[in-house]
Amino acid sequence: MIIQLESNIAAPVKEKIMQRMGDLKYKATEVKTQHGHYLIGIGKSDFDIREIGFMPGILDIHIVSDDYKLVSRKWKVKPTLIDLGDGVSIEEGQLAIMAGPCSIESEKQVALTIEHLKAMGIKIMRGGVYKPRSSPYSFRGMGIDGLKMWYEQARAAGIKIITEVMQVSQIEEMYPYTDIYQVGARNTQNFNLLDELGRVDKAVMIKRGISGTIDELLYSAEYVFSGGNEKLILCERGIRTYETASRNTLDLNAIPILKEKTHLPVVADPSHGIGVRRFVEPMALAAVMAGADGIIYETHQKPEEAFSDGQQTLNFQESLQLVRKLKATFELKQNLQNTPV
Amino acid sequence: MIIQLESNIAAPVKEKIMQRMGDLKYKATEVKTQHGHYLIGIGKSDFDIREIGFMPGILDIHIVSDDYKLVSRKWKVKPTLIDLGDGVSIEEGQLAIMAGPCSIESEKQVALTIEHLKAMGIKIMRGGVYKPRSSPYSFRGMGIDGLKMWYEQARAAGIKIITEVMQVSQIEEMYPYTDIYQVGARNTQNFNLLDELGRVDKAVMIKRGISGTIDELLYSAEYVFSGGNEKLILCERGIRTYETASRNTLDLNAIPILKEKTHLPVVADPSHGIGVRRFVEPMALAAVMAGADGIIYETHQKPEEAFSDGQQTLNFQESLQLVRKLKATFELKQNLQNTPV
Amino acid sequence: MIIQLESNIAAPVKEKIMQRMGDLKYKATEVKTQHGHYLIGIGKSDFDIREIGFMPGILDIHIVSDDYKLVSRKWKVKPTLIDLGDGVSIEEGQLAIMAGPCSIESEKQVALTIEHLKAMGIKIMRGGVYKPRSSPYSFRGMGIDGLKMWYEQARAAGIKIITEVMQVSQIEEMYPYTDIYQVGARNTQNFNLLDELGRVDKAVMIKRGISGTIDELLYSAEYVFSGGNEKLILCERGIRTYETASRNTLDLNAIPILKEKTHLPVVADPSHGIGVRRFVEPMALAAVMAGADGIIYETHQKPEEAFSDGQQTLNFQESLQLVRKLKATFELKQNLQNTPV
Amino acid sequence: MIIQLESNIAAPVKEKIMQRMGDLKYKATEVKTQHGHYLIGIGKSDFDIREIGFMPGILDIHIVSDDYKLVSRKWKVKPTLIDLGDGVSIEEGQLAIMAGPCSIESEKQVALTIEHLKAMGIKIMRGGVYKPRSSPYSFRGMGIDGLKMWYEQARAAGIKIITEVMQVSQIEEMYPYTDIYQVGARNTQNFNLLDELGRVDKAVMIKRGISGTIDELLYSAEYVFSGGNEKLILCERGIRTYETASRNTLDLNAIPILKEKTHLPVVADPSHGIGVRRFVEPMALAAVMAGADGIIYETHQKPEEAFSDGQQTLNFQESLQLVRKLKATFELKQNLQNTPV
Repeated sequence: MIIQLESNIAAPVKEKIMQRMGDLKYKATEVKTQHGHYLIGIGKSDFDIREIGFMPGILDIHIVSDDYKLVSRKWKVKPTLIDLGDGVSIEEGQLAIMAGPCSIESEKQVALTIEHLKAMGIKIMRGGVYKPRSSPYSFRGMGIDGLKMWYEQARAAGIKIITEVMQVSQIEEMYPYTDIYQVGARNTQNFNLLDELGRVDKAVMIKRGISGTIDELLYSAEYVFSGGNEKLILCERGIRTYETASRNTLDLNAIPILKEKTHLPVVADPSHGIGVRRFVEPMALAAVMAGADGIIYETHQKPEEAFSDGQQTLNFQESLQLVRKLKATFELKQNLQNTPV
Repeated sequence: MIIQLESNIAAPVKEKIMQRMGDLKYKATEVKTQHGHYLIGIGKSDFDIREIGFMPGILDIHIVSDDYKLVSRKWKVKPTLIDLGDGVSIEEGQLAIMAGPCSIESEKQVALTIEHLKAMGIKIMRGGVYKPRSSPYSFRGMGIDGLKMWYEQARAAGIKIITEVMQVSQIEEMYPYTDIYQVGARNTQNFNLLDELGRVDKAVMIKRGISGTIDELLYSAEYVFSGGNEKLILCERGIRTYETASRNTLDLNAIPILKEKTHLPVVADPSHGIGVRRFVEPMALAAVMAGADGIIYETHQKPEEAFSDGQQTLNFQESLQLVRKLKATFELKQNLQNTPV
Repeated sequence: MIIQLESNIAAPVKEKIMQRMGDLKYKATEVKTQHGHYLIGIGKSDFDIREIGFMPGILDIHIVSDDYKLVSRKWKVKPTLIDLGDGVSIEEGQLAIMAGPCSIESEKQVALTIEHLKAMGIKIMRGGVYKPRSSPYSFRGMGIDGLKMWYEQARAAGIKIITEVMQVSQIEEMYPYTDIYQVGARNTQNFNLLDELGRVDKAVMIKRGISGTIDELLYSAEYVFSGGNEKLILCERGIRTYETASRNTLDLNAIPILKEKTHLPVVADPSHGIGVRRFVEPMALAAVMAGADGIIYETHQKPEEAFSDGQQTLNFQESLQLVRKLKATFELKQNLQNTPV
Repeated sequence: MIIQLESNIAAPVKEKIMQRMGDLKYKATEVKTQHGHYLIGIGKSDFDIREIGFMPGILDIHIVSDDYKLVSRKWKVKPTLIDLGDGVSIEEGQLAIMAGPCSIESEKQVALTIEHLKAMGIKIMRGGVYKPRSSPYSFRGMGIDGLKMWYEQARAAGIKIITEVMQVSQIEEMYPYTDIYQVGARNTQNFNLLDELGRVDKAVMIKRGISGTIDELLYSAEYVFSGGNEKLILCERGIRTYETASRNTLDLNAIPILKEKTHLPVVADPSHGIGVRRFVEPMALAAVMAGADGIIYETHQKPEEAFSDGQQTLNFQESLQLVRKLKATFELKQNLQNTPV
């Protein structure tokens, strides 16, 4: 169960509720986020919801049959809006576009990318300064200095930053220069990292694990939410299957399924998803029709010279085409949804 | 290599070509279809294409590096058009819509479905009279009598029939009543069935295997083509993965990949693909943006009473909505493709 | 439910039982095999087992909660023994070894293989005369003439034959020359083939599908059994996963799981399972400890010259080593099982 | 390439070698471990090995075509021995048995387990004090205090400890109480954790990722080794497939494949691998015949009351049986290997 508490609830009033939960054999976890104050009850016994619901200090109570609770759409029907400030947001009903290189490589690259994004009206730039690499001998990113350099240019241009955090110790140093912390596919179940991101007041985008189930992605989001941070975005980025014709299998089935299960915005990453440059566009457009609230893709001024992932990265001309088509596709999707037959 | 022969090539002229192929250590297979006469050469040695290309009796010669040959887009860039007669076709540049129940169940069901399809202008009806079922105790279809009954009504209404063939002995008995033979996901590598379908002059739609690779699907099509039948359609219908939130994982990545690899039309089956009624629409629309040349889906007057697959079958109202949206989506896709920035 | 009928039950007595089943809302299927006469009841309603069990003509009645019935160990605890005649059998408590080439290639090859098997005391020879191949241009086997040639030599040597049947029309022509029909991994759900094999009085070995579940394998066996043939063997031969270091992933987990679920003997095929010659031995020995009742593997006098699957085929020296180790391993396994601590 | 340096190599001599590597377009990484001093060269150009090999300061040079280098068997044929002190080791040619509960729960549980292990002569105890759990509301382990309590009892009994480390900050606090750091399946590609474990002088056992490839596991080991720690053990613990009859699919194919690819010891975890108590024994014995250098399994005085994983945990009686059979099986395997035919 999820209990929404009154904002200034007195400690003894809260204690009484927790005691009642214990009596009903529910283990209570207290959660305080930017937007609410909750008690999560985990248990199995049946009880009359009024036994608790009418107690003082309670705004509302919800029975959620899913094992994840706070991220479930069963208690919060209204979609979550991620407000990044300065009029930039990620939310149902809009199409958030995030673009940029796989790796941040140089001042010039950042400048060229920002110019390209501004020309298209894109407000969120992606890029990696900490790079998870299979081999320890590969390029592992420019690190915090690269992030600072990027931040200076991005802020000057009014562009928000989404970038991957790989470990707990990076959270704090990245904080001043990051708008969205990205949790990569290899860290989806790095529970300590998720715990710590629950204590931060910045948006977090969690990518689905390389062979993570949809429910595991929701559980991972539950870690962050129950840690105190409601500013969550989920991202489908392709799963591992036996098929080798694509790098991963972008699982667009996950988009409508996630949209039904959770109130959080859902984004698709066609670049990693299919992993082949010339197929990124059709998959991105398909993701929009499947119901994605946003698209994150890789672009680079010279993909063939990119430090990483060049084979799946669009050049600026392709990127321009994609954005034009994304906007038209999203507009159609909204019209179809809103028009009665 | 693929050698296109002149239509009235004399036997000795052909023999000479085959002999030359043998000299070059290429094993020759002769293929005669509705549209062409070919020699397929399988071998590995390098040779100067002019050594064969200038021989009499040859229209054209193509080196195809793929292991499948005749279905490859590397020799035949122009997309294949499947002409079903009476102005009905499946082809790139059009969106073929095929709809109908999982199983043919009764005269009344067929009548209601045809009425529904006609109202929407749909010209191809799907339905099963031979049903592959995991358990031997499940309903296994109305058989040939069901097909005849269906055919009578369909022909009267100007509707074409696509239906599954499960074994060689059914090919002949189904022939008069069938417009497209469907090869199901459990028979994608039933090579004897494919061989025999190569000898038929009717269209064949091959579904991707339950965990078939994209290349295996192309090889299976190569069986039918090399058997003498060019009228081939491929269908993505969802693959088996570890994810259990959907029945299968509709792999839309396969659509642009197949469209690049082959000149055959590619169709998507969102009903089996995701397997959950309320998610069929977003996946169908996504498939269109991914580049599908057609959509095949399940609809029933009362899905909850269907003999099979009710959980993934649209009712007529949902079906109506879907078709309206499919048409708008396909129109947009075509516009985007044809409009310069 | 499974009802075992008395052997000479009179038609009206049987009718009465079927009527009672109908009254209880169970659909009855009559099954007559080499060893028994059964009524299978498919339904969901609860009833008192005595309502049927005490009726005349009934030997025994069993409630089987699995969806497969006749192949379940829930009604038949005693393991099934497959008697191939001449003292050759496949059964729990013995280790059946089946060996031979992937493809039957020549008289000489057969002679050499038989000599090799005889030297090791192996009584069952494997080999393909109908070969399922991904590409239509590959070698597709010697066909029925190859089988006859093989049969003559094998019978003279007292060796039994297991070979793959690919389609219904082959069953009859193969019958005089075959001891065990093998259903390959691509035909595990070729239900028409399974139906027809149910009408044959010879043993059938069904391989698990390329990505078939354990339950699907049992359902496929149920097809044959309910068609009238109890002489069934199951074979684990590797499943398709994302891993590319092995050809398939031999799933030894399936062995103890199958042994618990069914009374049928379970065999492992390490050659196809892992698909790399030098790893066949450890996987074969592992399969024995996992509980396999038999091992089927590929051997050839010159694997590097084999028409197919040479990369996973043992030479005779390796084969000799393997058999020696298989016997020692099986002996240990039996001892461990029978010795109290 | 891997260059083994002389132990007291002077800086300028080393510089010269690195310069030569650079001239040949190889990127040099210096690695200093407990047992050696290496330069790893990553590059693609061909060169005559004598151009470098004869330079002063070099003990040996090896060309390793794998992308992982230091963990490859291509340069170090002799198997790595992990010496845990007090005569306890993990190495090829011995069978290391590690047993204990999923979670450390109480002093009494630890005492009972140690008594049980001592009775069987087992020297390494497993147990978790930091527990990765899908849901944030599940029991997450006793933490460092639990580890201290466990350590006291274990040391008194001469038992070594293997336990999971989940994040960098735990490495130091766990250090005095841990003999083997276990990296769990969700952290196999937590590269920062691997980096830091490379700086520790204690053994590390890395579990294969939930859907990790064999090569990815080797790359992860390369992180630790190239970070400076050669004391590495690899563990197969089941991969994620579509099959639901087992919790995971213990991939025994990985054992002989890993043993060929790397000089590191390879261990199997049948408890997580198949995930069902009554199937742990056959899979453990199978793993031994497949070539495992060790078995790690879960046991608990009352599995049905365990805080986690009870369904796959053996009780002490089952554990006793397993160990007896493991020893007999390993003995047979060694005999078979050493006896000529």
